[in-house]
Amino acid sequence: MRPGGALPLEPLGPDDLDRIHAQALRLLAEVGTEVHDDEMLERLAGAGQRVDGTRVRWDADWVLAQLALAPASFTLTGRNPERRVTIGDGSLVMMPVGGPPFAHDEERGRRDGSLADHVELVKLAHASDLLPVLQSGTVEAQDREASSRHLAMDHSILRWSDRPFMVYGTSGEKARDGFELAALAAGGRDALLERPMTLAVVNPNSPLVWDGLMVTQLAACAEYGQPVAVTPFLLAGASAPVTLAAGLSVLAAEVLSGVAMAQLVRPGTPCLMGTFFTGVDMRSGGPSLGLPESVLATLAGAQLARRYGLPLRGGGGLCSGIPLDAQAAAETTMSLWATHLAGVDLAVHAAGWLEGGLVASYELMLDLELIRMFGWLARGLDVDEESLAFDALAELGPGGLFLAHEHTLERFRTDVFMSPLFRSQAHPTWEKQGARHLPAVAAGEWRRLLDSYEDPGIDAGLDEALREYVDRRTRECEA
Amino acid sequence: MRPGGALPLEPLGPDDLDRIHAQALRLLAEVGTEVHDDEMLERLAGAGQRVDGTRVRWDADWVLAQLALAPASFTLTGRNPERRVTIGDGSLVMMPVGGPPFAHDEERGRRDGSLADHVELVKLAHASDLLPVLQSGTVEAQDREASSRHLAMDHSILRWSDRPFMVYGTSGEKARDGFELAALAAGGRDALLERPMTLAVVNPNSPLVWDGLMVTQLAACAEYGQPVAVTPFLLAGASAPVTLAAGLSVLAAEVLSGVAMAQLVRPGTPCLMGTFFTGVDMRSGGPSLGLPESVLATLAGAQLARRYGLPLRGGGGLCSGIPLDAQAAAETTMSLWATHLAGVDLAVHAAGWLEGGLVASYELMLDLELIRMFGWLARGLDVDEESLAFDALAELGPGGLFLAHEHTLERFRTDVFMSPLFRSQAHPTWEKQGARHLPAVAAGEWRRLLDSYEDPGIDAGLDEALREYVDRRTRECEA
Repeated sequence: MRPGGALPLEPLGPDDLDRIHAQALRLLAEVGTEVHDDEMLERLAGAGQRVDGTRVRWDADWVLAQLALAPASFTLTGRNPERRVTIGDGSLVMMPVGGPPFAHDEERGRRDGSLADHVELVKLAHASDLLPVLQSGTVEAQDREASSRHLAMDHSILRWSDRPFMVYGTSGEKARDGFELAALAAGGRDALLERPMTLAVVNPNSPLVWDGLMVTQLAACAEYGQPVAVTPFLLAGASAPVTLAAGLSVLAAEVLSGVAMAQLVRPGTPCLMGTFFTGVDMRSGGPSLGLPESVLATLAGAQLARRYGLPLRGGGGLCSGIPLDAQAAAETTMSLWATHLAGVDLAVHAAGWLEGGLVASYELMLDLELIRMFGWLARGLDVDEESLAFDALAELGPGGLFLAHEHTLERFRTDVFMSPLFRSQAHPTWEKQGARHLPAVAAGEWRRLLDSYEDPGIDAGLDEALREYVDRRTRECEA
Repeated sequence: MRPGGALPLEPLGPDDLDRIHAQALRLLAEVGTEVHDDEMLERLAGAGQRVDGTRVRWDADWVLAQLALAPASFTLTGRNPERRVTIGDGSLVMMPVGGPPFAHDEERGRRDGSLADHVELVKLAHASDLLPVLQSGTVEAQDREASSRHLAMDHSILRWSDRPFMVYGTSGEKARDGFELAALAAGGRDALLERPMTLAVVNPNSPLVWDGLMVTQLAACAEYGQPVAVTPFLLAGASAPVTLAAGLSVLAAEVLSGVAMAQLVRPGTPCLMGTFFTGVDMRSGGPSLGLPESVLATLAGAQLARRYGLPLRGGGGLCSGIPLDAQAAAETTMSLWATHLAGVDLAVHAAGWLEGGLVASYELMLDLELIRMFGWLARGLDVDEESLAFDALAELGPGGLFLAHEHTLERFRTDVFMSPLFRSQAHPTWEKQGARHLPAVAAGEWRRLLDSYEDPGIDAGLDEALREYVDRRTRECEA
């Protein structure tokens, strides 16, 4: 094998895209999908789809007509109306990790997630200027009852941040609670419908199964006009064939059917094509993240999203590594490159993801620094009279040292990437400072970020209305 | 700041390139360079350049005419003629680290480099199929006298590997020793001239100073017809202005003047445009590697190389990190992405670089695994009937699991990236296996690679001739 200089940033040619798309439609028409929700089955039958028990065989033309109803971009507005974020305008929007049952930081170790952890992680995300959309369930509040903890987590975002957020969801009922809370903050359901504040993810049970919880959640998103990221979770070799092309056809089939259902409930519902598609470590059966399969799947998935005219949710700072060591960092960096090169619109799990997503890591500072680095790269470089600095070069001449020159002193604080984590220092200095590895350095940094958190405040009436809703529904859910 | 989806893979527009090129020629003509070698000064005066003491002011047309004499690509041939590597054909050729005074591995710790370390690292590089060109001085053999150790290091490559290599060099005299040894292996100086076996790096003392040692080495390369990578070592804010555009003009001026001198000694001498250009950590004055400045400088430097029609030496697996932790791994991964995206032809320091280049790391297995990953990415993905696997999808249908399906079992050993270092495993398994961080895992892996080393063997007559030359010259150098 010879390492190649030319990386296929668009690994699919036009014919490849055609074949994958054609197979997706064939899967939908001939194999079909399971749909485990009676109401949706009725709707689908009413729309002329072939329904046989819970198996739906989809008409290609109808599916594509439904797809055409989904907008190419949409805007989220936080409870502070100045917190507006457009998804699908060519920029990349990052979010914190979602879903980990465990939390970890260097001081307190690995532990079951708690509501206190959730609040801290919400505050950390809010204190960062790199995460304009927050995530409910950024760690699982395991100290709360499973039936009602979604309320506490959604509430903690609305209380401690004023940004748009992804609801906890996982079922139509729980998603509705998130939307109702958002409606209180938005000034009612109509206002929320007009200016979405939240979004949700639905994952089919790949391959080709839509379970009831997800279908009701999809329907709830459509009813409330909140965007939904239809995100197959595909593992090549497990929930999909081992060859990526096959998985891409499953990805397309599942996204198209999900989008079609959302449009059926309410035409115009904003939908993202989501992709969480990677390979499997055949030694353990676990997902291998940040490795070539996941990079290629991200790049190829993005080409499908562009073909379908949908904003893309994908990528993130993903890794399989368990401790925050060289493996985790290399995988995370690979994932973030894939995210940026693919042209992803929304990256969930961009910061704080560790151990294959089982752990929300407080050492998310590494992820944030990497994200900051990519932002710096995206600025490119200036070439003008000032930056060419001919006069300084002529003045100092051959052998000149620019460290103390005015041209340097005027710019180095603002024009050079400087990071608390990424340092270039002499070995003796490093030893004198305790020979610390990066996780130890990052530990200090999240404390500093948390100290910088400023409570956005909340209107007393809204505060009370949110509490009242959460208390009432918590009692109902736990009953 | 908003992270951008669109990364500028070619950060310079056509006008930017023009302005940088124009300033390079203006620097050469108006400011000039120092050249600290009487013989070269005479040659340059003879060729019509304005020489004033040691200051040379260069004629733009002459410099560009000299540049046109350098070939766009060249081939290196090892002492085993089957070890042929073309540089400049669009593929990326990787080399081990060069220059570190210290060696490090987990078991033996950080220590002064020795000849024994050098031999082990040569064997490791030879045992890998990812490093087709070797590096003399991959760690400094500090247990040998400084005046003669270059002979022992060059010799150790010719003895333990049969691949082309970069000579130790650092002066005309030392480079000549490397070339004479290679000539013995090639069957004489004429054969070596016809089929180069080695190459060398020359670094001007940036900005704009050509010291005597480097000029004599440049001349030696030209005389022996061995390719030379003219490689300014530029630090934005120290040896160059803090703005990258200015440094790029210095880079161009230094490369153009170096190439012109090489062509003056022997027209047609293969030259690479080399670039080692990054920012400075203003807290310590050390080079910051793998950060945005170094990525942008690599991408922009590649555009200059293409404009000048020279193969590009640049990038590598560079990092500032001291231990092999998350910092080092993230920086290395950033550097390798820049290397691949820039279209670098030859990456020196691709494997084994740690601590800003002060340490040759035996845990180079991480670098090799990353390089293997990029090779995997470069293959792209197949979309055909077999990989689309419609039959397997239809057979298993919705909810099917592909882990044990024939389609998976037939392919997962060969078609899926699997790595001893990058694992996806459960936390309890990881704990049971000692909760090891990546450096500890890599430590086992370099032992395994070393065990797989096969001595390529050496002709008895050549073996004796090399020893005789090394012994004689060692005595002369140490006298």
